[in-house]
Amino acid sequence: MDNIIFKDGTLFLLDQTLLPNEEVYITPKTKEDYFDAIKILKVRGAPAIGIFAAYAMALIEGDKVELKAYLDSARPTAVNLSWATSRMLKAYNEGKNLINEAVEIHNEDKRMCRKISEYGLSLLKDGDGILTHCNAGALATSQYGTGLGPLLLGKENGYTFHVFTDETRPLLQGARLTSYELERAGIDVTLICDNMASIVMKQGKINAVLVGADRIAANGDVANKIGTSGVAILAKHYGVPFYVLAPYSTVDFNCKCGDEIVIEEREPDEIKTMWYEKPMALDETKCYNPAFDVTDNSLITAIITDKGIAKAPYNKSLKEILND
Amino acid sequence: MDNIIFKDGTLFLLDQTLLPNEEVYITPKTKEDYFDAIKILKVRGAPAIGIFAAYAMALIEGDKVELKAYLDSARPTAVNLSWATSRMLKAYNEGKNLINEAVEIHNEDKRMCRKISEYGLSLLKDGDGILTHCNAGALATSQYGTGLGPLLLGKENGYTFHVFTDETRPLLQGARLTSYELERAGIDVTLICDNMASIVMKQGKINAVLVGADRIAANGDVANKIGTSGVAILAKHYGVPFYVLAPYSTVDFNCKCGDEIVIEEREPDEIKTMWYEKPMALDETKCYNPAFDVTDNSLITAIITDKGIAKAPYNKSLKEILND
Repeated sequence: MDNIIFKDGTLFLLDQTLLPNEEVYITPKTKEDYFDAIKILKVRGAPAIGIFAAYAMALIEGDKVELKAYLDSARPTAVNLSWATSRMLKAYNEGKNLINEAVEIHNEDKRMCRKISEYGLSLLKDGDGILTHCNAGALATSQYGTGLGPLLLGKENGYTFHVFTDETRPLLQGARLTSYELERAGIDVTLICDNMASIVMKQGKINAVLVGADRIAANGDVANKIGTSGVAILAKHYGVPFYVLAPYSTVDFNCKCGDEIVIEEREPDEIKTMWYEKPMALDETKCYNPAFDVTDNSLITAIITDKGIAKAPYNKSLKEILND
Repeated sequence: MDNIIFKDGTLFLLDQTLLPNEEVYITPKTKEDYFDAIKILKVRGAPAIGIFAAYAMALIEGDKVELKAYLDSARPTAVNLSWATSRMLKAYNEGKNLINEAVEIHNEDKRMCRKISEYGLSLLKDGDGILTHCNAGALATSQYGTGLGPLLLGKENGYTFHVFTDETRPLLQGARLTSYELERAGIDVTLICDNMASIVMKQGKINAVLVGADRIAANGDVANKIGTSGVAILAKHYGVPFYVLAPYSTVDFNCKCGDEIVIEEREPDEIKTMWYEKPMALDETKCYNPAFDVTDNSLITAIITDKGIAKAPYNKSLKEILND
């Protein structure tokens, strides 16, 4: 599934806010178009945001330093965003061809997803029941995806998986994107509400949990979609392996532990009104709407990156896998 | 808040499926009206269903044995339903006045909620942060409620609580009913998605979890709204007391443990379509939609009933509190 396509000088983006009801590609032109697409989640998933922002840095004219700061401010938690814009700024300062640099970032992502998928698949077996949260599939990246990569690669290699996907409130990425993407790939998928993760684990339907990551601290604490930490606690309780799959670039060695990660809060009323025909609570009812939470490294069985598989203690292993 | 009113021979029921947008009282006439009201959750919450079914047994003419079986089949997991219809059938066989018996069941429920609220409040302190799941408030019972009873009684006594309510997918009782009910009672309430329970506990915002119960096994395992077991596992992980509040009649001594409780499954597509303007997943995407889960007794700090407070081991304490 190609969600970002660069062709004949034009960038096409599959608008994820319209899925699964409509498959529409937009062609952002101005820097505001790019900013909005990141901000309102037309493009989402750390790697996809990075690729998209790289093309923005290449295609938008003007002061590249200002452009970088502007784009970065659209999603402060997504480390891949600032990683990609920094790399593009560096390329600009070195006088490189920025289009080529963006295409190279895109291609590197495809190779990276393939590596993560291979490492991840090595930990699964045919017939496994899998739980996933949010969307870390091809829609979040460029190909295969990270969290869903082993499932898509496994499918190509004749594996049968039985996947449960949390709907992932409030924006329902699990329902709208993951179930859509797996359904389209011909993988057995069952949609559940977030609060049903406990019962499917208790019933023995889940052999492994696969999730992505937005930022990984040096000690292995993982910031990911709100609710991930809850799933990890349930997995530990029921003795189910909990795997985080993400590009190595998601590891932020400048961030010692999860406490240092700023949790982005989204518009509170999004909970009450988004996707609903009528408001589900009173106007005066306040909401709390954190976009992410941090999963403690003690709850994580392994962190699977394109550079290899890290296990506790992560402070050591996340550095060591680079040298293997 | 009076959700069931019996006045001048007519029964009025606040239709909970329309809350919080509309406050409409319906007047069921036929046995099908009563059945449907129970089935599609116009009335919900174990005690309220029992009261409602008691009035149905009194007001509907015809074969009372058949009527009882018919009503019971509307919600097989709700033990209060069959408890109330059995008691009404017994009263009928003994030649009692059935209207008086139904009114007495209603009044007993009010006294019972008051007792539960008093016992529950004894475990809380002014200023506590509280998490609740689904709706076990006045709307689910007759007055004060069970799970929310200590909060409503506390409010009357000058306590300030900071309540977080899970929205409780798929039917959103926490959003539609609990936040509505607490807002109307002047209690500080914040609505969150189900998958945000972990982060608010981690942030130290929660001093106690209060939930209701649909059925309690002799060993203290508790069947309650889907997602309750997940909240209990999180509470244990974060060291937050987890309290179940329910009428003593919810304890089913014929049921040895949670494994014996049949989990009602609702229409799968309810997840995809209910409350949504447009479907959030593909037509062909299957869903799994269990209405309840079972919380293991090892996760429960105390079970608070109108007869007193039971703590582990529940096999013993649930019987002993009757004699205190």
